[in-house]
Amino acid sequence: MIIVMSPGATRENIDAVVKKLEKRNLRAHLSTGEDRTIVGVIGDKKTIANLEMNMMDGVEKTVRITEKYKLVSRDFHPQDTIIKVGDVEIGGKEIVVMAGPCAVESFEQVRETAEAVKKSGAKILRGGAFKPRTSPYDFQGLGEEGLKILRTVADELNLKVVTEIVDKDDIEIISEYADILQVGARNMQNFQMLKALGKCGKPIMLKRGLSATISEWLNAAEYIMIGGNENVMFCERGIRTYETFTRNTLDLSAVAAIKELSHLPIVADPSHGTGRRKMVAPMSRAAIAAGADALIVEVHPHPEVALSDGDQSLTPADFQKMMEDLHGIAKVMGKTI
Amino acid sequence: MIIVMSPGATRENIDAVVKKLEKRNLRAHLSTGEDRTIVGVIGDKKTIANLEMNMMDGVEKTVRITEKYKLVSRDFHPQDTIIKVGDVEIGGKEIVVMAGPCAVESFEQVRETAEAVKKSGAKILRGGAFKPRTSPYDFQGLGEEGLKILRTVADELNLKVVTEIVDKDDIEIISEYADILQVGARNMQNFQMLKALGKCGKPIMLKRGLSATISEWLNAAEYIMIGGNENVMFCERGIRTYETFTRNTLDLSAVAAIKELSHLPIVADPSHGTGRRKMVAPMSRAAIAAGADALIVEVHPHPEVALSDGDQSLTPADFQKMMEDLHGIAKVMGKTI
Amino acid sequence: MIIVMSPGATRENIDAVVKKLEKRNLRAHLSTGEDRTIVGVIGDKKTIANLEMNMMDGVEKTVRITEKYKLVSRDFHPQDTIIKVGDVEIGGKEIVVMAGPCAVESFEQVRETAEAVKKSGAKILRGGAFKPRTSPYDFQGLGEEGLKILRTVADELNLKVVTEIVDKDDIEIISEYADILQVGARNMQNFQMLKALGKCGKPIMLKRGLSATISEWLNAAEYIMIGGNENVMFCERGIRTYETFTRNTLDLSAVAAIKELSHLPIVADPSHGTGRRKMVAPMSRAAIAAGADALIVEVHPHPEVALSDGDQSLTPADFQKMMEDLHGIAKVMGKTI
Amino acid sequence: MIIVMSPGATRENIDAVVKKLEKRNLRAHLSTGEDRTIVGVIGDKKTIANLEMNMMDGVEKTVRITEKYKLVSRDFHPQDTIIKVGDVEIGGKEIVVMAGPCAVESFEQVRETAEAVKKSGAKILRGGAFKPRTSPYDFQGLGEEGLKILRTVADELNLKVVTEIVDKDDIEIISEYADILQVGARNMQNFQMLKALGKCGKPIMLKRGLSATISEWLNAAEYIMIGGNENVMFCERGIRTYETFTRNTLDLSAVAAIKELSHLPIVADPSHGTGRRKMVAPMSRAAIAAGADALIVEVHPHPEVALSDGDQSLTPADFQKMMEDLHGIAKVMGKTI
Repeated sequence: MIIVMSPGATRENIDAVVKKLEKRNLRAHLSTGEDRTIVGVIGDKKTIANLEMNMMDGVEKTVRITEKYKLVSRDFHPQDTIIKVGDVEIGGKEIVVMAGPCAVESFEQVRETAEAVKKSGAKILRGGAFKPRTSPYDFQGLGEEGLKILRTVADELNLKVVTEIVDKDDIEIISEYADILQVGARNMQNFQMLKALGKCGKPIMLKRGLSATISEWLNAAEYIMIGGNENVMFCERGIRTYETFTRNTLDLSAVAAIKELSHLPIVADPSHGTGRRKMVAPMSRAAIAAGADALIVEVHPHPEVALSDGDQSLTPADFQKMMEDLHGIAKVMGKTI
Repeated sequence: MIIVMSPGATRENIDAVVKKLEKRNLRAHLSTGEDRTIVGVIGDKKTIANLEMNMMDGVEKTVRITEKYKLVSRDFHPQDTIIKVGDVEIGGKEIVVMAGPCAVESFEQVRETAEAVKKSGAKILRGGAFKPRTSPYDFQGLGEEGLKILRTVADELNLKVVTEIVDKDDIEIISEYADILQVGARNMQNFQMLKALGKCGKPIMLKRGLSATISEWLNAAEYIMIGGNENVMFCERGIRTYETFTRNTLDLSAVAAIKELSHLPIVADPSHGTGRRKMVAPMSRAAIAAGADALIVEVHPHPEVALSDGDQSLTPADFQKMMEDLHGIAKVMGKTI
Repeated sequence: MIIVMSPGATRENIDAVVKKLEKRNLRAHLSTGEDRTIVGVIGDKKTIANLEMNMMDGVEKTVRITEKYKLVSRDFHPQDTIIKVGDVEIGGKEIVVMAGPCAVESFEQVRETAEAVKKSGAKILRGGAFKPRTSPYDFQGLGEEGLKILRTVADELNLKVVTEIVDKDDIEIISEYADILQVGARNMQNFQMLKALGKCGKPIMLKRGLSATISEWLNAAEYIMIGGNENVMFCERGIRTYETFTRNTLDLSAVAAIKELSHLPIVADPSHGTGRRKMVAPMSRAAIAAGADALIVEVHPHPEVALSDGDQSLTPADFQKMMEDLHGIAKVMGKTI
Repeated sequence: MIIVMSPGATRENIDAVVKKLEKRNLRAHLSTGEDRTIVGVIGDKKTIANLEMNMMDGVEKTVRITEKYKLVSRDFHPQDTIIKVGDVEIGGKEIVVMAGPCAVESFEQVRETAEAVKKSGAKILRGGAFKPRTSPYDFQGLGEEGLKILRTVADELNLKVVTEIVDKDDIEIISEYADILQVGARNMQNFQMLKALGKCGKPIMLKRGLSATISEWLNAAEYIMIGGNENVMFCERGIRTYETFTRNTLDLSAVAAIKELSHLPIVADPSHGTGRRKMVAPMSRAAIAAGADALIVEVHPHPEVALSDGDQSLTPADFQKMMEDLHGIAKVMGKTI
């Protein structure tokens, strides 16, 4: 930490700062410039992390030098983490595509979608059984019935299952049916649930909060890893901006940022990230070109009758066409799909 | 709902739209302009709420006319709701001030703060026992021990207690000690917790999410009210913008907006809303002038040693001075404090 | 400036940094911690301001300690600046209200509005003759004809005139008719115009850009002051956020921030800041309570037929009612209106 | 336009609305639902564009159906526009790369950079001679001297020149030296300059404003096209969000959006868009994969001594390596580079 004293700080103010640091076994390193003094703080990182100096007289501001997360940081774990989900590997040489309907509506809908996406190359089936909805009057999902449908269809077609968890009480039941548990944007800082997921044996896909900074997102993943669960992947799903043409603004620079700052895999969600069917294919291509390890895409056999998010769902035919293009991009990136 | 057909929509496209509506017992009202047709949808509101038309051929976009929330809406409940917390009334003629430390650290700290704020006119003691923190390495609160301290001190001084709940499993224990349960910004769309709070007998203070729209905030309150709990108050605590001088941007127009759209009381939090001690007094005055029913303010006897958020805490002396100014503003608003 | 070296920086990297600083006659102050070295840079401020160090090997990031603006800063000019516009003083004990239509449409419209606002206590007449409009198909203003109307009416009623300038070529002609030249949000960083206004003898009202940080806003004012024009006032008119219920988000914490960081007066514009007629009165009260020196408010005798921004214009009767409340708030602030 | 009446609107309110429309030769189409009436407005588009109805009694809100821009719209010009700059075509089968230093500093610097980028495949030389800088104390560019350097070097190497214009008075002089005139983000709504550029014979590259919506951006281009200049290309350069790890948030969904809404070419600027050297290559690849027609990239032979924006400049070696990857992505898109 660096403490910037104000131009008007007195000798006494500076002494008081130094004394407070020394009382905590920290060392102060003073740089005295023309109109102000800067105090560098040296010592135990945890002590520094909990230090509050801004209220002291003569202190103008403090600047934190180091981020608090460690387990998720590439600094401490330089090589890429590869997450194994059965025989599917996320974070390795193969781009993994997760696809399926936004919400599970019926066995037939899931079956029809799953067959189509499997044929086009998807390895993981997605679908919501517990839906977090803005209004209590919206369709809230089929619950366990939905989980059963996903599992049955996936087993039949040799797919893995990813589905959202919205309540820590559901960890056990969802773990019974799903291979990857997804934490949605609204729960990115539901710290109690993150802690509980740290104790669960399943890989976690942590979506970025609607307006979460990259640093907050990494800290949220730290909550899971600190509990012992090392199989965490991030998912960029668009952030909230003032733009209204798209539902969210898919931030692909976050893909590059995560690759730089963390060893964990990163997934992109162009469906929620744009909210517009026509944009899913171009943004999927762009996500892979930016370095994403995986994609999660909404596909619905009949998007015009979907119970949620029909606007952003691809038809199986759209999806097939998109996958063909993605092969070429993956190849340029030295990967397969 | 209004369905805007694209300029290139064919007669068949329009017929298909009308047919889909009629199958759902809705009526279509066509306006045919120079280059496009607009379809007004008339009929049962719930059916319309679940209608997805954007994917149909020839449909350019749809416009929703009505919001989904009802119980929180002033349209259906024109007079102001007053929430009774013992003999304290929130939403009435008196501006209620909640004050206390960000986090409960010790009995002495809470006792000293409570005495001071009580003397200056606060009616409700605030303090966090369960703290949601960005990093798992930050101080997470004293838990039940903190709740006991709050209750003991409050009873002694005849104050009420408001404290944050971060886990639906804690409803029972917090209800034992606190008079108002606060839902923090990060949990505004923790729908499982909102549903559970709808069944609890305590007043709820629902903070606005970091980047929640006013409509989403109202819908979140609807989740609580639909469960039977009518004692919900909103709390504006600053939204996330690009500005870095302040910690958040306190959006006082949201105070006026809530007053227009809902009958429920609105509280302002200038401490988290600005993150800067010097701004707490001016923004408190402004909040009351904008129509806020209550304030929640951080006060710490020794902010320079606070375990969290010291930068934004007032000293008891600052608080006392601020309260004097607030009397004048309240009076102009036809209220007392 | 502080240079943060990465944990992996070598002795050679640090030496190279120090050498680069010394070549520029700057001194380096090293603080060597457990896993990294921090370099404090001491010396001539202008040299430091132009220093680029981030690209050097081993440098993780740099932190600027001081802002670049000086003339606008309260650090260098502790007492409040009062701007004299004839016998009207902005920044002193009196809250000044500027009022009038968004756009000048006709002599009758301006005359009727001006009479009404004068009667209610406004001192300055506002009105746009040159309108910056998002679409080239929108009404662009009456031009010089509009300026003449403003001047004639103002002289008759002993009011001052504030009007927007959108082109530096218009400085001369607008200066002939107006008392204060307003720089709109879209031109806050039209640096060529700011430089030219620095040479003009009229007070300038500098609106905040749609998404300008407070620091950028202060730097923009520095462009004007550096040219010799010391009569600059700021105007907060709402920033762009994701919220759609209001047209912009009026950031009243910016009022408090400007008061802290600068000696120049600050005006609030609740009309553009909210875009909703019902919100103008509460936000005007709040602005004064937050410390604003002046208000600028849109009033139109018949807002339903206004050629621009009718939605946010008060009627003369609304305005009269609002002014009555403002007296009380001003009094609490130790001011008059 | 659609006018939504409030639930409490009276028969008289509705009649008044209809009468106002009829007086303007517009037709009203009424849809009467359970609790409210919706009025569709039919007739001359320009009349509707200028209609203000929100202030009328009983009107809850109005919804505009059509955007105001026309010349830039793909609806009215379905095939892609290709802009010819000598023998270079932007918007066609070839991805065009513009590269060079942020600011022109010296002949040697430009010469060295230009040779390197030419060798790697760039067709257009970029470089700022007139720099818009946040602070008046920052380096403002070499002016005409800089333009001469650009032209001399470009002619020698058979490159085209793109450079920024910050003042409409400079159109003539910049047109003498440059092939494409760039309007920077801060001037996107400098409408006087846009109008003047509409009369100039050179292609214009219009950067997106810091927080401009896509609709505002398209309207800004309309200001240029309406003057007769049809050679307008857009440039996405990152928008302002709350994220601080990147300088801006490069919005690649805007690339897809422009392709959908307009026939004009779109350029991406990953250098300003991210502000981080390491992110330029991944975001360049992503931009092409999203459908961009061209890239503009900062390259500096010695970024560590650059007078501006060194942090985001590639070295010639970085640039060479990036270009190799881009060929593969372009090929997947059916293009060359």
